[in-house]
Amino acid sequence: MPKISGMEKKVAILGAGNLATLLSLELHRKGVEIVQVFSRTETSASLLANMLECCYVTKPEEITPDATIYLISVSDMAIEDVLSKMDCNNKLVAHTAGSIPMNILSKFSENHGVFYPLQTFSKSRNVNFSCIPFCIEANTAENEQILVELASLISNDVRIITSEQRKQLHLAAVFANNFVNHMYAIADEIIQQKDLPFDILYPLISETAAKIENITPHAAQTGPAKRSDMAVMQDHLSMLNDKPNLKKLYSSISDSISEYHKLPK
Amino acid sequence: MPKISGMEKKVAILGAGNLATLLSLELHRKGVEIVQVFSRTETSASLLANMLECCYVTKPEEITPDATIYLISVSDMAIEDVLSKMDCNNKLVAHTAGSIPMNILSKFSENHGVFYPLQTFSKSRNVNFSCIPFCIEANTAENEQILVELASLISNDVRIITSEQRKQLHLAAVFANNFVNHMYAIADEIIQQKDLPFDILYPLISETAAKIENITPHAAQTGPAKRSDMAVMQDHLSMLNDKPNLKKLYSSISDSISEYHKLPK
Repeated sequence: MPKISGMEKKVAILGAGNLATLLSLELHRKGVEIVQVFSRTETSASLLANMLECCYVTKPEEITPDATIYLISVSDMAIEDVLSKMDCNNKLVAHTAGSIPMNILSKFSENHGVFYPLQTFSKSRNVNFSCIPFCIEANTAENEQILVELASLISNDVRIITSEQRKQLHLAAVFANNFVNHMYAIADEIIQQKDLPFDILYPLISETAAKIENITPHAAQTGPAKRSDMAVMQDHLSMLNDKPNLKKLYSSISDSISEYHKLPK
Repeated sequence: MPKISGMEKKVAILGAGNLATLLSLELHRKGVEIVQVFSRTETSASLLANMLECCYVTKPEEITPDATIYLISVSDMAIEDVLSKMDCNNKLVAHTAGSIPMNILSKFSENHGVFYPLQTFSKSRNVNFSCIPFCIEANTAENEQILVELASLISNDVRIITSEQRKQLHLAAVFANNFVNHMYAIADEIIQQKDLPFDILYPLISETAAKIENITPHAAQTGPAKRSDMAVMQDHLSMLNDKPNLKKLYSSISDSISEYHKLPK
C-alpha cells in the first residue's frame, strides 16, 4: 500500500460529480486506497463506490472519521454545510475548487488545504491526468507536502499556488474555457443555419488552440477586427440582423480586440 | 509532371502572405508546377519564389499569361485591382478568400472559382494540410473538377461549398478562431497580473478544444454563467473593476450564455 510522507493514505471522496469521479478513479488506478464515497445522490454515490470497490454514504453525518485525507469535491455552496455535519477528526481536509479560499476550511480542521486540478471534466471523456496542473495550497508545510505527493502520483505538473492566485486563475479559466466554449456554440449555431456540419470547423478550432503554445495570443490575433476591416465587419453585423444578442456580442468582442491592439474603431 | 483532368497544371501564385506561402509550398511539395509568384512587396515575392524555385514579378502587368491556374491570395481589397491589371488569358482564376463571392471574378475570366482552405495560417507554423477542409466553388463543372483535383492533392477533406455558405462559414470562423483567440489573450493578461505563467492554461485550452469533437458545445458548456452562480460572477466582476472593458465583456458573454441556455439572469 503506497504511503505519503510515511503516512498511510486512506482517502475519502466527498462528492460524486465529474471531477470527484475522474479524480478518485485516477487515484485508485495509481494504488491509492479510497475508503469511502459520500454523495447525497444515492445513484451517483453507489455507482462511483462500485467502480472504486469501496463503500458509500449519503449523509454527511455518516462520513467515516477514519480517513487520513478528505477530498471535498461537492459543489462550492455545499462545502461548508457538509463539513459542519461530519467528523473529520482533525485530519487533512482539502477542497478541489477554483474560486473558494482555503481558509473557509480552517474552522473544521486544523489540517487543511486545496487540491485544485486546472482542467474541465466530463464523465464521458477520459482526460490525461499526467499533464493537468495541480494547484496545491496548505496551512502547514507538512500538509503541503502530503498534498504535493498525492498530486504527484497522478500528475507531472504540481504547483504551489496561493488562494489569491488560484482565484485569478479561475477567472482566467472562465475566459479560456467557458467563454471559448460559448464561442464554439455560437459558431455551431451560425453554420447550421446554412446546413453545414459543425465538423468542418474542427481543424480550425484545434489549430487555434495549438497555435498559442508557440505564438502568444496577442501575436496570434487575426481577423477583421484586428485589421480594422470595416467592410467585412459591417457585412457580418448585417448577417446577424435577426439575432440581436449575437450582433451585440460581435460588436463587443470586436471593440475589445480594437482596444486591446490600440486600433482605431 | 502531374496532370489534372488531362490538363497540365501550371500554377501562378498571386500573393506572398501567410496563406499564399504555406499553400504554394504544399502544392510544390506534392509535385505541382508553380510557374510564377506575384507580390507587390519584392522581399516577400523573392523569398517565396526562391523557396518554390520559380521566378517572381512585382507588377500585376508582368504576371505571365502562360499559367493554367491563377491562385489569388492577395488581400480581399486588392483582388479586383490585381485582376484588372493582369492578362489571365481567360484561364482559370480562383481566389482563396472566405468572405468574397465567386462572381466578382466573372468579369476577368470566363473560367473562375474559389479555392478556400478553412484554417488559420502563420508562416512560423507548419500545418497539416491533409486535414484542412478545402471549400471549392466554380462556374462550370469542369472548373470545379480541376479545383477539386488540385485540392485533393494536398487535402483529404475537399467540399463543394456555395458563396453563401462560405460567407456564413467565414462568420462562424470569426467566432471559433478570432474571438476564441481574443479570449486566450484576455486569460493571458489576467493571469499575468498575479505572476502566473500562461502555460498553466495550455492543458485546459487544449481539452476545451478537443472536447467538442465528442460533445456538442451546447452540452459541453459549464461555468458560473451556465449554472447561474451569481456569487462567483459578482466576485469576478469586482476583480475586473480596474478593467472596465473586460468587465463589460464578461457581462455580455455571461448574458449570452444565459440567453443561450434560457436561464434566469
